[in-house]
Amino acid sequence: MARLNSFFLPPEAWPGQPGETVRLDGGEAHHIHTVLRSRVGDEVRLFDGDGHEGAFRILALRKNRAELEALRLDEHTAPASGVTLAIGWGKSKRRPYLFEKAVELKALGLAFWTASRSQGEVPDDAKESWRDKCVQAAKQCGNPFLPRLALLPGGIPELLAFAAGFDRCYLAWEAAEATAPLTPGHLAGCRSLVVIGPEGGLEPDEARALIDGGFAPMTLGDSILRWETAATYCLSLGFFAGQDIK
Amino acid sequence: MARLNSFFLPPEAWPGQPGETVRLDGGEAHHIHTVLRSRVGDEVRLFDGDGHEGAFRILALRKNRAELEALRLDEHTAPASGVTLAIGWGKSKRRPYLFEKAVELKALGLAFWTASRSQGEVPDDAKESWRDKCVQAAKQCGNPFLPRLALLPGGIPELLAFAAGFDRCYLAWEAAEATAPLTPGHLAGCRSLVVIGPEGGLEPDEARALIDGGFAPMTLGDSILRWETAATYCLSLGFFAGQDIK
Repeated sequence: MARLNSFFLPPEAWPGQPGETVRLDGGEAHHIHTVLRSRVGDEVRLFDGDGHEGAFRILALRKNRAELEALRLDEHTAPASGVTLAIGWGKSKRRPYLFEKAVELKALGLAFWTASRSQGEVPDDAKESWRDKCVQAAKQCGNPFLPRLALLPGGIPELLAFAAGFDRCYLAWEAAEATAPLTPGHLAGCRSLVVIGPEGGLEPDEARALIDGGFAPMTLGDSILRWETAATYCLSLGFFAGQDIK
Repeated sequence: MARLNSFFLPPEAWPGQPGETVRLDGGEAHHIHTVLRSRVGDEVRLFDGDGHEGAFRILALRKNRAELEALRLDEHTAPASGVTLAIGWGKSKRRPYLFEKAVELKALGLAFWTASRSQGEVPDDAKESWRDKCVQAAKQCGNPFLPRLALLPGGIPELLAFAAGFDRCYLAWEAAEATAPLTPGHLAGCRSLVVIGPEGGLEPDEARALIDGGFAPMTLGDSILRWETAATYCLSLGFFAGQDIK
């Protein structure tokens, strides 16, 4: 189905079987109608970012609404391993870029936590624009899974509670105490969580609390990486760890 | 010297020994004078992007010119291994980002070549703005080496000639024939060249010519990466390959 134009249908609206009718609203309806000039009868690909995708036929088109019939439905098995990043919140123009890279490099999740040196406040909910960025990237690269987005305004205690859901937890730390480089092996075959500090870095007591809470401190290497480079680097190691190396 | 403000002095102007006087012009002079409000007598760090750095004292300051005296001079050994990327030219707003990541992840070089699907023309010379981007990134991350920038408007023949300067040459290819994933091991302990297609990918005959010319075809994995994600991914594997893993 790679060549069909792709549209996002939220998981809660995903049909149970072929023959059922679904509806696209808002931006996706606008996109199918105006941008791509689709027509009634055209076949398109829908996906829900949760492993479902399918071929659908357009039954009706209006400016802000499209009705489609499910023709063929596929379900991908949820990945059993992968990387989730928990990044110290900051006021960054570079955040949109991260969503895109996370989808392309198949991150399982992205979380933002409130660090001592965070600038601005972690919002209560993931912004609509974040999911949109992920959806656009998923259309381009074909990843049927969108990363799970989480917000942890409660700082270290909430981050520690969040960590309970992972097989292995790492702290990317630039202090001299962190001498072991993070490797693909650390991220292979498990659901891992990698914590990255905000721009400006972690406070020593934050790092200590995470290490005491079971996070393994790791260096990302002998360079001073911007937060989004650090994030993309970890995602790259995680993506590599997921490849089938003979 | 990490805490001193950093300024770029081109290699051809680098002093031979402490006590010599150097001059900053243009943007760097503006930056030292106006943006950072330095004063005569202040100590700053200069670097030439070719492994030299040093502590200098400001002797005189004008709006577009600063004179400085070398106090202490250091020279870093040029890295014996690392990655150079040769990327198919395109009209991309994302190019500035790549320069930054290349410096942070210690790429040895970046080249742009004219591919069949390239949009726009490879310029004759590296743009001033490219070096500026690299310089800004080097100030931030402390890398004393800037990646060497090369332009290969002559397409595949010029790319093949360029490849003669490297120990190992790889072609990142998304075709089904490329089944071996590129690994950090491929990039370790050597000067490697990795060719990445333009947005839109390589034509089969381009890939064939490179493979016939000695390039090993490698997959970057089971995702469709944008060109700059592919580039950052390769740089990440190369940077990881350069770390000292115990």
